[in-house]
Amino acid sequence: MPAKVAINGYGTIGKRVADAVELQDDMDVVGVSKMKPNYEARMAVERGYALYATTKDVLPKFEKAGMKVRGTLDDLLKAADLVVDCTPEESGFKPTYEKAGVKGIWQGGEEHSLTNFSFNAAVNYAEAVGVPYLRVPSCNTTGLIRTLYPLDVHIGVSKVLAVMVRRATDPLDSKKGPINAIEPELEMPSHHGPDVQSVLPNLNIHTIAVKVPTTIMHLHAVSAELKKTVTAKDVLDVWRRIPRIKFFRGAEGVASTAQIMEVARDLSRSRSDLYEIAVWEDGVHVVGNTLYYFQAVHQESDVVPENVDAIRAMHGLEKDGKRSMAKTDKSLGIGGTG
Amino acid sequence: MPAKVAINGYGTIGKRVADAVELQDDMDVVGVSKMKPNYEARMAVERGYALYATTKDVLPKFEKAGMKVRGTLDDLLKAADLVVDCTPEESGFKPTYEKAGVKGIWQGGEEHSLTNFSFNAAVNYAEAVGVPYLRVPSCNTTGLIRTLYPLDVHIGVSKVLAVMVRRATDPLDSKKGPINAIEPELEMPSHHGPDVQSVLPNLNIHTIAVKVPTTIMHLHAVSAELKKTVTAKDVLDVWRRIPRIKFFRGAEGVASTAQIMEVARDLSRSRSDLYEIAVWEDGVHVVGNTLYYFQAVHQESDVVPENVDAIRAMHGLEKDGKRSMAKTDKSLGIGGTG
Amino acid sequence: MPAKVAINGYGTIGKRVADAVELQDDMDVVGVSKMKPNYEARMAVERGYALYATTKDVLPKFEKAGMKVRGTLDDLLKAADLVVDCTPEESGFKPTYEKAGVKGIWQGGEEHSLTNFSFNAAVNYAEAVGVPYLRVPSCNTTGLIRTLYPLDVHIGVSKVLAVMVRRATDPLDSKKGPINAIEPELEMPSHHGPDVQSVLPNLNIHTIAVKVPTTIMHLHAVSAELKKTVTAKDVLDVWRRIPRIKFFRGAEGVASTAQIMEVARDLSRSRSDLYEIAVWEDGVHVVGNTLYYFQAVHQESDVVPENVDAIRAMHGLEKDGKRSMAKTDKSLGIGGTG
Amino acid sequence: MPAKVAINGYGTIGKRVADAVELQDDMDVVGVSKMKPNYEARMAVERGYALYATTKDVLPKFEKAGMKVRGTLDDLLKAADLVVDCTPEESGFKPTYEKAGVKGIWQGGEEHSLTNFSFNAAVNYAEAVGVPYLRVPSCNTTGLIRTLYPLDVHIGVSKVLAVMVRRATDPLDSKKGPINAIEPELEMPSHHGPDVQSVLPNLNIHTIAVKVPTTIMHLHAVSAELKKTVTAKDVLDVWRRIPRIKFFRGAEGVASTAQIMEVARDLSRSRSDLYEIAVWEDGVHVVGNTLYYFQAVHQESDVVPENVDAIRAMHGLEKDGKRSMAKTDKSLGIGGTG
Repeated sequence: MPAKVAINGYGTIGKRVADAVELQDDMDVVGVSKMKPNYEARMAVERGYALYATTKDVLPKFEKAGMKVRGTLDDLLKAADLVVDCTPEESGFKPTYEKAGVKGIWQGGEEHSLTNFSFNAAVNYAEAVGVPYLRVPSCNTTGLIRTLYPLDVHIGVSKVLAVMVRRATDPLDSKKGPINAIEPELEMPSHHGPDVQSVLPNLNIHTIAVKVPTTIMHLHAVSAELKKTVTAKDVLDVWRRIPRIKFFRGAEGVASTAQIMEVARDLSRSRSDLYEIAVWEDGVHVVGNTLYYFQAVHQESDVVPENVDAIRAMHGLEKDGKRSMAKTDKSLGIGGTG
Repeated sequence: MPAKVAINGYGTIGKRVADAVELQDDMDVVGVSKMKPNYEARMAVERGYALYATTKDVLPKFEKAGMKVRGTLDDLLKAADLVVDCTPEESGFKPTYEKAGVKGIWQGGEEHSLTNFSFNAAVNYAEAVGVPYLRVPSCNTTGLIRTLYPLDVHIGVSKVLAVMVRRATDPLDSKKGPINAIEPELEMPSHHGPDVQSVLPNLNIHTIAVKVPTTIMHLHAVSAELKKTVTAKDVLDVWRRIPRIKFFRGAEGVASTAQIMEVARDLSRSRSDLYEIAVWEDGVHVVGNTLYYFQAVHQESDVVPENVDAIRAMHGLEKDGKRSMAKTDKSLGIGGTG
Repeated sequence: MPAKVAINGYGTIGKRVADAVELQDDMDVVGVSKMKPNYEARMAVERGYALYATTKDVLPKFEKAGMKVRGTLDDLLKAADLVVDCTPEESGFKPTYEKAGVKGIWQGGEEHSLTNFSFNAAVNYAEAVGVPYLRVPSCNTTGLIRTLYPLDVHIGVSKVLAVMVRRATDPLDSKKGPINAIEPELEMPSHHGPDVQSVLPNLNIHTIAVKVPTTIMHLHAVSAELKKTVTAKDVLDVWRRIPRIKFFRGAEGVASTAQIMEVARDLSRSRSDLYEIAVWEDGVHVVGNTLYYFQAVHQESDVVPENVDAIRAMHGLEKDGKRSMAKTDKSLGIGGTG
Repeated sequence: MPAKVAINGYGTIGKRVADAVELQDDMDVVGVSKMKPNYEARMAVERGYALYATTKDVLPKFEKAGMKVRGTLDDLLKAADLVVDCTPEESGFKPTYEKAGVKGIWQGGEEHSLTNFSFNAAVNYAEAVGVPYLRVPSCNTTGLIRTLYPLDVHIGVSKVLAVMVRRATDPLDSKKGPINAIEPELEMPSHHGPDVQSVLPNLNIHTIAVKVPTTIMHLHAVSAELKKTVTAKDVLDVWRRIPRIKFFRGAEGVASTAQIMEVARDLSRSRSDLYEIAVWEDGVHVVGNTLYYFQAVHQESDVVPENVDAIRAMHGLEKDGKRSMAKTDKSLGIGGTG
């Protein structure tokens, strides 16, 4: 029987996870919740999702806006096996889920300690089978794990420095800036390093984050000291064997994140998303034992397939991570030669 | 028999027209041409289009890049009934098309005088039936015609001032700016006014253009003196009867072009395009006999349905404009109540 | 005896007014107040201003930061004849000033009704002589008055439509956006129209505002119906007789607000400010009886000379507005041939 | 006798060097040259510089614009001892200067090999005394040298990785983008690493460059392996002994390059320039033997004092680098406690 999935927070991540779940044959969306009767709530209804108000407090807003809801989150949870929590960080719904007896997945805004299980399908799918709660780390953390884990497994990585040039906000937001400034995260390491280690505890990684005025993608400049002497081609060969990485070539005019997202649009996926981590083939360099590479992360969507796999693991729908990933990827159009 | 359509210039507009043509049951894409073997050329091949080099001169570039082409534009034209020219302005292919005996459609970068027929499906479809050459005016011009024409027909418009706050470049471009400046078009009227008049010769319109650092949409602040005293609701009622206009509400959080394009993404159309002109319902105001409204134009896609209709008219596939528009709109997912 | 001026709120406007006051021979800054011991407070001290904490509540913050203050706003007001309030809108200090028996000037964030006197040196200096409280309207409103008032006096203006393409935030701010969107002000008219009328009650003006992702200047596209038939040269001649307007030429490469601010920097004024309203000479057009022009407003500084004049009028230091303006302008380096 | 200095190319760097030279008591600007009679040329005249057309070819443009010139570059060079070449890279004027018998300084756009002497006042002033030609490296390179050289001298640096988040263009430019993208420099190392080594040949440094949509400053995230175990305070103490570094504190609200440039404006220097390299005190971290820090570079002005010192060395006006630097810094207002 398909897993019955509730989405708490139908926003940037929530709506994507909802749609991805709907594409699977072993899980269904039983409803989505919103705090505000805004345009996203309207689109949820237009797409056919059962809409719920998150709390009783906000019901009058929906009434006033003439937007019908099926009830509140509590009602929604009654119909669900599992909830994907895509609410803002520290929203504090865990007791609600516990009380309702549903499993729960959180996103990267939460701390590892909330669930004590940070998930990445390629790394620890098997251990996630059957667990009640887990967290899918943030887009940036997931992006780093995607490329570093296979390197560590197949070549060996002794030390990583990742400088993350972060998009300042998502495309749907028009309130946040900066408009014309670069903002470093002065505390070090940025939270991303320890966050990677919540999945890969033995990886020696330091991360530095800088915020810049763009909305479409994060870019990482990664420097990794390798345990073996290899070539750039060797590195690319490792990555080519792995799903969820897509290759781009500066030589073909993919000079920036703008052209990467243009390719994503040309792929005609839903919302023009790019679930894969984008790696520039001609930006991979090995100097001595140090590997340098650039990758770009579509912050709105790279965690979507991980959420689907997490549901599958937690609900025991599939024991084998590779098979889950293949299934998820096929449904989302991930794959091919890049 | 379906019209055989060639796309000369598979770029921002060309690729969208190609895909829209492919969605029709009465026309086919016989091939697309490119000057450069860049990522867009690669995507054309991946989407299954027959790729041609525009000229013999550039064949070696394709060879060097390992990208196979079927020949040159001349070869492509032999297989075509009609070519949609989406090349940069003043590329000068008209003699080529004449020699090949194919009909031709140009985009708004060209002058009206090139074809002496500027097309808008709602305005002059009937006159376009069977013509050999025509021009679809620019995104901004098409956008103004979409909302002003029905107002003029149903209410009467005596004078228009449209201030166009223009996106500076398309999302796929990372070379052009400005990054932090506003640039007025000092010559007046901007070319858009006369351009609107190439379709609506009796409309008294003055246009002013200002370029700003954004990539996603143009925004028009329109002031129109009406011949009758009406209410904002009357105006909205006129537009509601017309296709290719979509309504948005600031009250629902659609505060800017960012949220409009987010709705477009939520519609899951190809490339997250918005073919309709976006009008803010709660931004329509009538003061005395003057109507003020804001509209936003998705510069990459609003002309796409017009191109499809133009093909249908020129090739004599359908004599009735409304039926062509309905057919086109259905295929592209345009419609509904917004 | 020089007027003793306190600055409540040493931020974007406050620090500029402070420095401008210090340049005058008939007024002195007796101190400035801040809510936070931030870098601006530090710079105030480095420039030699007596620093006060705005309230007792925030004194511990200053202590913790090791930044010495002379006391609180109450202490500062004891030493002052007049306070320039540059605090965020609706900060509500009027009772405090009344109690302290000091005159007060507010900025454009406040409503006209707070003081019932909205000031522009060219328009109503004489009426401001001796008044206890007044308001200097916002940068945009001041900018519109600067160019429209002389037109109305010398030519006659029957109707104005001003579309204001607004910078989204100031250069010192890195929190506010949008980064990549255009945001119309859906309510109409925008507050600027009525605000202009608080100084020029008989001017028939409608204003429309649109926010764009830039930090350096506002740009206005103004359309004005004139009572006489004149040429663009006639209009320019009117403005040339007036101070606080500076002319720029697109033909000399001043294509956008970027180059206008570059000229401001080349003038080597404090903070690279541009106190004048910038008008593009080659962007002034007359069509029939309608005048179209573009002007740009340096939002951080155009109100600074107005504040100085207001102090002079209120304190009765000079009865003649033209003489005050000339004195202010000379001190700030305003003037010359543009 | 003061050195007679010509400025070839009165643009972003040229005009700043000209003004800085004018502030010195041992050198004078004898004239400046321009290719175009644009607003910068007009400002040169307004500031009192003798204006020359660069070549005979462009004289008619100046005539047409009504801008008087004193002659051409050839004429200017006759009056000069030394020329500061601030023309676009590879403009190729070296033979012209040789023929005219003047000494020459180039900027960072040129290769080291053009002069075989890359200058930094703190590093190699003594060797520059009397040389005919030299190059001042780019803003980024100069910025890296400023902070790394003292670290290497006082602590010892075994390896450096600098990721440079680059502003895409200067504030005066409104043509270049990107508007909404991040663009990595795919070739590695970026030219900055070897460029640093043209001044510090023994420094083991790898540089990575990424371009982002901002105009005001570059930001560097630097990672340096040190030869000794030290604390962040030790590092700051080294830098505090050195001129041309200025300290900022995130804790005081200097969160980004926006607030750094705001401080520069509050300093009331010409053009709001920041000649010093900006270092965030609370962004300096030492982990094991690795030092991490952020610095920001005002690309328009950090090389200005270096150019002044270079003139002094080449002309033999001062043999001691520290005395030249102190003289230059005093004239430009550099110094103080930061």
